[in-house]
Amino acid sequence: ILRKKIAVLAGDGIGPEVCHEAIKVLDAVAERFGHRFTYDYQLMGACAIDATGDPLPESTLAACRAADAILLGAIGDPKYDNNPAAKVRPEQGLLRLRKELGLYANIRPVTAYDILLPHSPLKADRIRGADMLIYRELTGGIYFGEKGRTENGAFDHCTYTRPEITRITHLAFQSAQNRRKKLTLVDKANVLETSRLWREVVQELAPAYPDVAVDYLFVDNAAMQLILNPKQFDVMLTENMFGDILSDEASVIAGSLGLLPSASVGDKAALFEPIHGSYPQAKGKSIANPIATILSVAMMLEHFGLQEAANVVKEAVQDALVQNVLTPELNATSPSTTEQVGTHIAQCV
Amino acid sequence: ILRKKIAVLAGDGIGPEVCHEAIKVLDAVAERFGHRFTYDYQLMGACAIDATGDPLPESTLAACRAADAILLGAIGDPKYDNNPAAKVRPEQGLLRLRKELGLYANIRPVTAYDILLPHSPLKADRIRGADMLIYRELTGGIYFGEKGRTENGAFDHCTYTRPEITRITHLAFQSAQNRRKKLTLVDKANVLETSRLWREVVQELAPAYPDVAVDYLFVDNAAMQLILNPKQFDVMLTENMFGDILSDEASVIAGSLGLLPSASVGDKAALFEPIHGSYPQAKGKSIANPIATILSVAMMLEHFGLQEAANVVKEAVQDALVQNVLTPELNATSPSTTEQVGTHIAQCV
Ligand SMILES: CC(C)[C@H](C(=O)O)[C@@H](O)C(=O)O
Ligand SMILES: CC(C)[C@H](C(=O)O)[C@@H](O)C(=O)O
Repeated sequence: ILRKKIAVLAGDGIGPEVCHEAIKVLDAVAERFGHRFTYDYQLMGACAIDATGDPLPESTLAACRAADAILLGAIGDPKYDNNPAAKVRPEQGLLRLRKELGLYANIRPVTAYDILLPHSPLKADRIRGADMLIYRELTGGIYFGEKGRTENGAFDHCTYTRPEITRITHLAFQSAQNRRKKLTLVDKANVLETSRLWREVVQELAPAYPDVAVDYLFVDNAAMQLILNPKQFDVMLTENMFGDILSDEASVIAGSLGLLPSASVGDKAALFEPIHGSYPQAKGKSIANPIATILSVAMMLEHFGLQEAANVVKEAVQDALVQNVLTPELNATSPSTTEQVGTHIAQCV
Repeated sequence: ILRKKIAVLAGDGIGPEVCHEAIKVLDAVAERFGHRFTYDYQLMGACAIDATGDPLPESTLAACRAADAILLGAIGDPKYDNNPAAKVRPEQGLLRLRKELGLYANIRPVTAYDILLPHSPLKADRIRGADMLIYRELTGGIYFGEKGRTENGAFDHCTYTRPEITRITHLAFQSAQNRRKKLTLVDKANVLETSRLWREVVQELAPAYPDVAVDYLFVDNAAMQLILNPKQFDVMLTENMFGDILSDEASVIAGSLGLLPSASVGDKAALFEPIHGSYPQAKGKSIANPIATILSVAMMLEHFGLQEAANVVKEAVQDALVQNVLTPELNATSPSTTEQVGTHIAQCV
């Protein structure tokens, strides 16, 4: 019997709805396997700005530090997006949280589910069997460099240090060793100095993983290859900004952004969140797909060492797919609500 | 009768082969319409490094300044790519040329050709009718900011000034006015200060183009939307790095990178090049698709004000598509050579 405390940052938009279903599934796991999960609900994002003026209140940060894992729904509100002058933004909360907790590796699995092939914009034969893991560096690069205005312009500085690159590169190599033993570094080494440093570090570490084949792709080419031939990828390693773009792009392989989970890990903390955003247009309509969040919870269970429980959750999700108990973007003719999908999956656990 | 001097930078890999065919087509245009095009062949890229040590020799730059337009094949050689310590690189030649000539707007049309729908990795109903123009800023951003090494790391600075954003934004708005009257700015304004400046400038200029509908997408979302629903885009405007990634990604809509032309224009010069690279594996095999370069030449003719000649070239390309006179990536069963495709198109002119 395992006891775990989970900080829940449900966030904005559809965040609370999808978290609610994921927790339903966690509770089902606890009951089936006799574990004990407790939840500490905290504010982050636009909801935290509205309540406290701060997208990441100190109390939230403290709760996250004290927790065994963090579950995040989604953050973001359009009222901040088209206001370039806004001083406080929901995203700052998430970025600060990643940085404060040292969540340097964002891991995003992308799988083509056979049963959803008809939903992908890509032809079935291109994606059938695609199964990759994107390792996106999450606490460095242009996201966290100095930024500001000059008299007549603006700047954002992209920086990377060797240790920042080294630690995630080791994780990516280790992960490749447990999979199909292929690592692809995506960079823009023909233009960027930081990319050349990435390439250097990966080349230096490669001999320590002789069973892993390494290749290198420029990011423009990678954006194309992801669509042309996604099956070529096993583990993809890349810096923060490129990873943001490529992992959202790769979601088309799965057939819906609503299916893609992620884990953000550091040496002392781990956060689990769907890769989709707060989808404000869907808020309160019970049409948001909770599966990405539920699969994030499966990643959390793996992180706890509960591999069997994780597998049970993944199989329960598979059941919802097979039974077509799905939200409208995947089942337009007889859609289930967010709640119904969550309940179905929890009952399968 | 028009006289034009064209600087030809055939470059590396397949560059010379595809330029050869494009010039064949230009000559056919000259003959049919009674114009006179002369060609000034110059070195740039890896071939220029090999010959002179400099990827952009002064003589090449001078010839480009003296020309009415520049035709570029492709540059790049893998021997420089995996050598992070290389001090001189082919790409530096291209980047310096863009900067020296002030080629600040890179225009990349992306069209789904009906006849090639089966070749796209995307399902036909998603892309049929897609037709967009990507305006990529080409002389600013992280490509041209300060870059270098620190004791333990590396940096690349991304900067933009208001005038840099303003001039290309006007071009993009004007282009949208002549099309379907929709402009989409792609940025990462929820994270980057430069993106917030882009958003500010576009918001400020929008009232001067009241007939154009403007919307804003974050780059991660745009990378997904390009594949999910490419028909939503008319003119897409974005900064240098994002434009590099998104335009290569968008090539999957056309069905082959070998079809996509581009124009890079400034206030005093214009350069035309296929968006594909030097494809060194194909060099000398006569399998490279010359159509992207031939369509770049059609853009050059438009730039010269020769709209009728440009249309004739585009129709000749269409004829090659319809007759299936195509290189192996588009016609695996009875492929034509690079030369044969060029000759067919020239004869149709
Ligand atoms: C909300 C935003 C700051 C964030 C990012 O860009 O990292 C999101 O797109 C993500 O991928 O988690
Ligand atoms: C060769 C490289 C420097 C170049 C770029 O990134 O601009 C190329 O990818 C392009 O898009 O023209």
